[in-house]
Amino acid sequence: MRLRDIGEFAFIDRIARMSGEDPRVVLGIGDDAALLDLGGPELLVVTTDAMLEGRHFRLDWLEPAEVGWRAASGALSDVAAMGAAPTALFCTVGLPASWPVARADALLRGIADSAEAVGTTLAGGDVIASERALIDIMVLGQVPRGQQLTRDGAVAGQVLAVTGALGAPAGAVAALAELGTEALSEAPEVRGRFARPAPRVRAGRAIAASGLACVAIDISDGLVQDARHIAERSGVRAVIEAPRVPVAPGCVELAARIGADALVWALSGGEDFELLLALDEANVAALADLEPVAEIGLRVVGRIEDGEGAVVLDAQAREIDLPRGGWDHFA
Amino acid sequence: MRLRDIGEFAFIDRIARMSGEDPRVVLGIGDDAALLDLGGPELLVVTTDAMLEGRHFRLDWLEPAEVGWRAASGALSDVAAMGAAPTALFCTVGLPASWPVARADALLRGIADSAEAVGTTLAGGDVIASERALIDIMVLGQVPRGQQLTRDGAVAGQVLAVTGALGAPAGAVAALAELGTEALSEAPEVRGRFARPAPRVRAGRAIAASGLACVAIDISDGLVQDARHIAERSGVRAVIEAPRVPVAPGCVELAARIGADALVWALSGGEDFELLLALDEANVAALADLEPVAEIGLRVVGRIEDGEGAVVLDAQAREIDLPRGGWDHFA
Repeated sequence: MRLRDIGEFAFIDRIARMSGEDPRVVLGIGDDAALLDLGGPELLVVTTDAMLEGRHFRLDWLEPAEVGWRAASGALSDVAAMGAAPTALFCTVGLPASWPVARADALLRGIADSAEAVGTTLAGGDVIASERALIDIMVLGQVPRGQQLTRDGAVAGQVLAVTGALGAPAGAVAALAELGTEALSEAPEVRGRFARPAPRVRAGRAIAASGLACVAIDISDGLVQDARHIAERSGVRAVIEAPRVPVAPGCVELAARIGADALVWALSGGEDFELLLALDEANVAALADLEPVAEIGLRVVGRIEDGEGAVVLDAQAREIDLPRGGWDHFA
Repeated sequence: MRLRDIGEFAFIDRIARMSGEDPRVVLGIGDDAALLDLGGPELLVVTTDAMLEGRHFRLDWLEPAEVGWRAASGALSDVAAMGAAPTALFCTVGLPASWPVARADALLRGIADSAEAVGTTLAGGDVIASERALIDIMVLGQVPRGQQLTRDGAVAGQVLAVTGALGAPAGAVAALAELGTEALSEAPEVRGRFARPAPRVRAGRAIAASGLACVAIDISDGLVQDARHIAERSGVRAVIEAPRVPVAPGCVELAARIGADALVWALSGGEDFELLLALDEANVAALADLEPVAEIGLRVVGRIEDGEGAVVLDAQAREIDLPRGGWDHFA
């Protein structure tokens, strides 16, 4: 049996089974981030996110600063999904010794800028030489005890809602793969969301503080896959209504150019770094009016039912099979 | 100008210059670990340490569990060097999809065992597929406010002292490179220190709590290089007296077999994960008698003078040039 046979999530489960018991670890593996209770008024949130050249990013598709920004955004988004405010960001960077110093500086600058854009700071890091560039980001955050958002706790009857709009990163990758490096020159909105995503840190904190929703995940594996993560941890079934899913601006036009389907990008593309919430329908209007949420938008995209797994329904409420279920590192 | 031209330490300095200001970051880049003040009675210690197959470890030299143990030990040792107790360990593991699950499990088990051996736990992690195995370890620790050990603060007139004994990891690597995978079958003590190092967590905590020393670094880059780090941060000169340096058991015999010099391994080999301290000479005897220090030994190996840099003196007090100054990832 090899890693590719069991896949990423089963392997992460194995890490979880190897983890020791410690009363300070409130939440270990299985959510967007770990939660530690060190005795203060706030819980500590810890998350790591690693990206490898050739697998998670290509240096001919983005500027080095954008690669750094994107890598940092993934971990900052995990912190946002816990309802926490980021406290400090650390990076481990592996770069070829042949890299110009200016290129390395630009990559680091992108990491630092991404942190500063959400009110935190690059506080440390480690450097190794590596034939392929790699970036491992670790973010610490803090959330007042009891306010943490988790994947656990969704109940039948609630709705699923998503911030912002989806599909741009998947669309950008598809277009770049199809048309080459100039593919996005006429799709600046798509390129912008791909190159400099905005982790929903302010929205996450506001949602957590409001108490209007307690269940959240950030969309990194794809809307349907991440809905499935909520369903698994909560012991429920997630139903996504495809026509209600907000597709990011510019995606439909870009998809038409390459004969693709923008809705598929939005449903299963991933790395959108928006927030997917499960909440009582009665709270949706109030949550959508919260200042940082109102800026980016909040759309109901489905509901929670008794059962298990995640399904997608079309306008006629027929179940849709997606081309793939989401991102698996070992697939 | 390329990364290999400026080297690892200059690159880390560039990260430091890019780091933002944050009052919660008591100590950012430049010590063994970052120190954060989140308002509780203890400071939070954060460190990351990354290792890459082929560069930092070889899977034909150690068992997968030993590779995991060693990787975790490097970060745990950083926490020990701050005088902190580790709170939780997180790992990012990159492995080829073709790896047998059992081999991946063994590597993870080594990481988890290393954490448990010093009273902490593997609390989370991330997984990516990577052609070359890579392990990035992050450890959080806690140290009572005011007890932290740093590289800064050594003053002329103090002595340098080291726990345990040095040179085994460098000797193991030299012998394996010279004689092949069976090189250490008759050198179990050397192999043991290489394969399953013991980060000085208990000793570090006891030293910090005693107040008998305030300046420490863990020996990861090599004794002389790490003494130089203390000298730089403290604005002093470190003088190592080579005849006083404790060479690990079995190293002299192993060195004789391959025509090498065990003292060079001890002076500049690195990854020993012992502690190097600067302290008042009057405190040495009391510190050596502290229970966890007494078990592993404490030896004076030099002194702090006015000036800068680090030098090594032979028995006639003549300055020795070492073959290399320590480990530089980009050299």
